[in-house]
Amino acid sequence: MPQKVRIALDAMGGDHGPSVVVPGAALALSRHPDSEFILYGDRVQIEPLLAVQARLSRAARLVHTDVAVRMDDKPSQALRNGRWKSSMWLAIDAIKKGEADVAISAGNTGALMAMAKFNLRMLPGIERPAIAALWPTYKGEAIVLDLGASIGADAEHLVDMAVMGSAMARVLFGRDRPTVGLLNIGVEEVKGLEPVREAGRILREDPLPHIEYVGFVEADDIGKGTADVVVTEGFSGNIALKSAEGTARQFADYLRNAISQSVWSKLGYLLAKPAFRLLREKMDPRRYNGGVFLGLNGVVIKSHGGTDPEGFAAAIDIGYEMVRNELLAKIGETMHRHANATVPAPAIGGAAS
Amino acid sequence: MPQKVRIALDAMGGDHGPSVVVPGAALALSRHPDSEFILYGDRVQIEPLLAVQARLSRAARLVHTDVAVRMDDKPSQALRNGRWKSSMWLAIDAIKKGEADVAISAGNTGALMAMAKFNLRMLPGIERPAIAALWPTYKGEAIVLDLGASIGADAEHLVDMAVMGSAMARVLFGRDRPTVGLLNIGVEEVKGLEPVREAGRILREDPLPHIEYVGFVEADDIGKGTADVVVTEGFSGNIALKSAEGTARQFADYLRNAISQSVWSKLGYLLAKPAFRLLREKMDPRRYNGGVFLGLNGVVIKSHGGTDPEGFAAAIDIGYEMVRNELLAKIGETMHRHANATVPAPAIGGAAS
Repeated sequence: MPQKVRIALDAMGGDHGPSVVVPGAALALSRHPDSEFILYGDRVQIEPLLAVQARLSRAARLVHTDVAVRMDDKPSQALRNGRWKSSMWLAIDAIKKGEADVAISAGNTGALMAMAKFNLRMLPGIERPAIAALWPTYKGEAIVLDLGASIGADAEHLVDMAVMGSAMARVLFGRDRPTVGLLNIGVEEVKGLEPVREAGRILREDPLPHIEYVGFVEADDIGKGTADVVVTEGFSGNIALKSAEGTARQFADYLRNAISQSVWSKLGYLLAKPAFRLLREKMDPRRYNGGVFLGLNGVVIKSHGGTDPEGFAAAIDIGYEMVRNELLAKIGETMHRHANATVPAPAIGGAAS
Repeated sequence: MPQKVRIALDAMGGDHGPSVVVPGAALALSRHPDSEFILYGDRVQIEPLLAVQARLSRAARLVHTDVAVRMDDKPSQALRNGRWKSSMWLAIDAIKKGEADVAISAGNTGALMAMAKFNLRMLPGIERPAIAALWPTYKGEAIVLDLGASIGADAEHLVDMAVMGSAMARVLFGRDRPTVGLLNIGVEEVKGLEPVREAGRILREDPLPHIEYVGFVEADDIGKGTADVVVTEGFSGNIALKSAEGTARQFADYLRNAISQSVWSKLGYLLAKPAFRLLREKMDPRRYNGGVFLGLNGVVIKSHGGTDPEGFAAAIDIGYEMVRNELLAKIGETMHRHANATVPAPAIGGAAS
């Protein structure tokens, strides 16, 4: 690993482009001084923002391009129009060329995933990528995947996700054997869950290094911290995440609304303000910003498109940790063991075929 | 329809049995005096509870049985041991025999569904049942289904659920053409969503009476009230619900915990107490208690097993409304039209076969 963590940024991604990315990078740099940045995007927009960030200016290099993937481009459009030249492509390509260790974009998820797959390719033994993110729990944080990289999953993909998610948990939580659960629903004897059951059987009967399999968990277990890593296919994972985000926002809005109803409740709010600050910190979506693309030959992080500099910095922080603590090597360790266990032994006396 | 709404109660279901069911029924009766009850269960436990409810005693009849389905019985066990004689079976059977209009149980979901399907059978044209429940939104309430009656769904089942959910919305929200959305995820060009896309095409191109199809919605749209009815298959529906419930509980716990941190915040809480009461009412899970089994030849309601009398009364209220506003007839109206539209026309000049 290089002495510094080299971070490639798509400066044009997200709803606010460089006006969020540049100050976000400055924030992240103040927390991790052993970082350096390559910013890809429109020089005219980026230079003035960079000029007021003295420290970041010294740690960053700007590569101009006037092509940017739009938030509503379809993945196929983005690939057609943005390959070789868009800020998103160039940030990913910096990993491929060995100039950066991680790429971060707040641009559109589908385009970023398509470009990352196309350019970086999959890790050996992994067939499909996954998107993982942090989820606030009573005990701290959990990792949930897949949040929508693909729909549906067979048992093998679920096991691969357990491997990748536990590697990410080792990086972020510093635990040697993170607990892993498979998301399921409580109703017994319902058909259609064969892949989940089969994945559970594999994880139980064929224990892998660095994974402590804890069985099935339900969606309301995620926030309880029942497992460090919760694995599910992308459709239900995306729905779990959006359902939780929507509910948290709804609760916060109701609370704000209730408090503004009377002078007394406003006064009460002022007295209890530190308590509310604590609550806000616990549930702050910015803290949990940063979807990690897993399964690729490189680390790519997707930031929320609408986030602010603090949120974008949180996504950079995650990217930094993934590199500093060698996510890919950790995935490789367990995958290697998994592959050796599951590759069928050659048939005895089999002819060359 | 009979003059009174006749409600059959499994008095032994749930974590607390008759001690919740009997006072819950008394509460519901006070709100809907045109109800009458049949209570199925253990006479020794029920009679003393009924004795202190003068009004309910006059409106209720007790049918003794000493067999009860346990909360952890598998559906197959429940059918084997509880058929013909358990309080759960007898409550459902009262519908079949024409003695009741609706059955309500806080017993285990799998057993209740298995017995209801076995005894009542499906409505004409509907192949699989669904469980629907209310979800609090900014605008009021939405109906979400399926919450786990079955896993996976083809386009036809999704359309059937749109029909059944919109009938339920007509009953509960008094709207003639409720809006209906299909739950989906935002990522474009992801494979595996064919049934959802196909259902969307059917609902768009072949409009049904009493349904205003509004397209795809994401899980964070549910709470926004984007649609009166949100349709999805049972695995993701269950996960959406549990994820929201878990998050709401987590938020409430953090809030309580934050407030108890200091004297000032406790004082602030006292001043803002009416505001908090408002918040609690908005998000009170008891208000949304009552999963409606749809698609059966009869109305069966599942109450949460751990609820209190207020929550159980809410489940009874939903059952009452379903009968009073003729849920089954409303499903039938739209299904009839749907069936006529989709049954293929006989081949021209085709021989009898």
